[in-house]
Amino acid sequence: MITLSLIGIGTGNPDHVTLAAVRALNSADVILLPRKGEAKSDLLDLRRLLCEQLLDSATQANIVEFDLPTRDAKCAYLSAVDDWHSAIARVWAQLMDKHLPNGGRVGMLVWGDPSLYDSSLRIAKRLTDSGRAVEVKVVPGITSLQVLTAEHKIPLNALAEPVQITTGRRLRERGWPSDAATVAVMLDSGGAFTTLPQEDTYIWWGAYLGMDKQCLIKGPLSEVNDEIIERRAALREAHGWIMDIYMLAKHPLL
Amino acid sequence: MITLSLIGIGTGNPDHVTLAAVRALNSADVILLPRKGEAKSDLLDLRRLLCEQLLDSATQANIVEFDLPTRDAKCAYLSAVDDWHSAIARVWAQLMDKHLPNGGRVGMLVWGDPSLYDSSLRIAKRLTDSGRAVEVKVVPGITSLQVLTAEHKIPLNALAEPVQITTGRRLRERGWPSDAATVAVMLDSGGAFTTLPQEDTYIWWGAYLGMDKQCLIKGPLSEVNDEIIERRAALREAHGWIMDIYMLAKHPLL
Repeated sequence: MITLSLIGIGTGNPDHVTLAAVRALNSADVILLPRKGEAKSDLLDLRRLLCEQLLDSATQANIVEFDLPTRDAKCAYLSAVDDWHSAIARVWAQLMDKHLPNGGRVGMLVWGDPSLYDSSLRIAKRLTDSGRAVEVKVVPGITSLQVLTAEHKIPLNALAEPVQITTGRRLRERGWPSDAATVAVMLDSGGAFTTLPQEDTYIWWGAYLGMDKQCLIKGPLSEVNDEIIERRAALREAHGWIMDIYMLAKHPLL
Repeated sequence: MITLSLIGIGTGNPDHVTLAAVRALNSADVILLPRKGEAKSDLLDLRRLLCEQLLDSATQANIVEFDLPTRDAKCAYLSAVDDWHSAIARVWAQLMDKHLPNGGRVGMLVWGDPSLYDSSLRIAKRLTDSGRAVEVKVVPGITSLQVLTAEHKIPLNALAEPVQITTGRRLRERGWPSDAATVAVMLDSGGAFTTLPQEDTYIWWGAYLGMDKQCLIKGPLSEVNDEIIERRAALREAHGWIMDIYMLAKHPLL
């Protein structure tokens, strides 16, 4: 029997890790660290650093790095993602067979929280669906969205109002969600907010949230629109990769 | 100068507290603990217990309990909430004047995360708007919604789809939000999901999330609808209060 813990580790700042996550890491027999290619090697380094900082000296955990399969960018998005998740599940299964042939505890470090725009739960389900004796546990973690609101000192929702969490792709395709006073946008490959009407819209933007190179910009969209686009391009150029998200509202949130 | 830290403490389980929250608590000169009346005294006890567990022996923090003003239930909701926030801000100001006349660090324990259906940021803004020298800091915390998804082992969003976070009141008034594949419902005074069409809708419900008396129910809404209503009433009767939330989706989330 394998116990697979999907451990939300927040955004790379060890201060944002919960006590439950520290305990889950320290009780793992094997910790799997995916390598995602050169451009994002910062993130692998951050995970290695987190492991060093959070694992106590008595830990037995064997840290195993592995190459993450790549997604086929030529196929339609959803079917490519489906194939990709299956490929990752096969790699996880091979690593479990190799490193824990008699069962044990596997820890996976998940950026943010395993519930929000993360595939670990879907990949793990492929293992249980295929008949493997895998028990999944989930340890919640602080999301980049929570760091965005904390750093800008704003709420996610206007008073008694709903909030929509959506993707850049969706915002481009469908515009402002009809039933939401505030909108949080994740997974934007760049500037989906430029497709919205600029009037009476405010934005709170953040990149590399929780990291040393964190960058924040806020204001009326009509005033900071270009600044965000330019800063994003410059940061991406400087660091080789970028992760950014933002909140939108029709009025100042506080 | 007062530094006011709004510290997300998660759901009462000390394992869900972050290292940043532990540090913020331990660096406070004064920690304010609101008393909300008899029915929810469990929650005050839980906050006292968290302080005991998380404050180290060298801490200088002075723990100050105070009576929270009550909201006028006779007035229209939004204007009553507005008056209530102003009354709370006045109490915070009095406590700061009394306990920190020369300035210092105040810590407020906030259930969940200060960004999500919490009023602390709006109350703090009244202090800064009135010209007080108050610097606000926000420490993110694990929300009950994250514990709900972790315990049910489900994602918040369907693959590449948006999610709406809304209130029970709003769900009753407007029905299913038009642009959301999954809906998370908070602040429901009871059974707003019974107003939805029962067919092809799944629910993942949880009460007292993160606490010892946590209770989970999930399934097709048509099958577990009555069970949730009955269990909720029984738990509320047994404990004198209840906090519960749920996720809804048009298909199984995994």
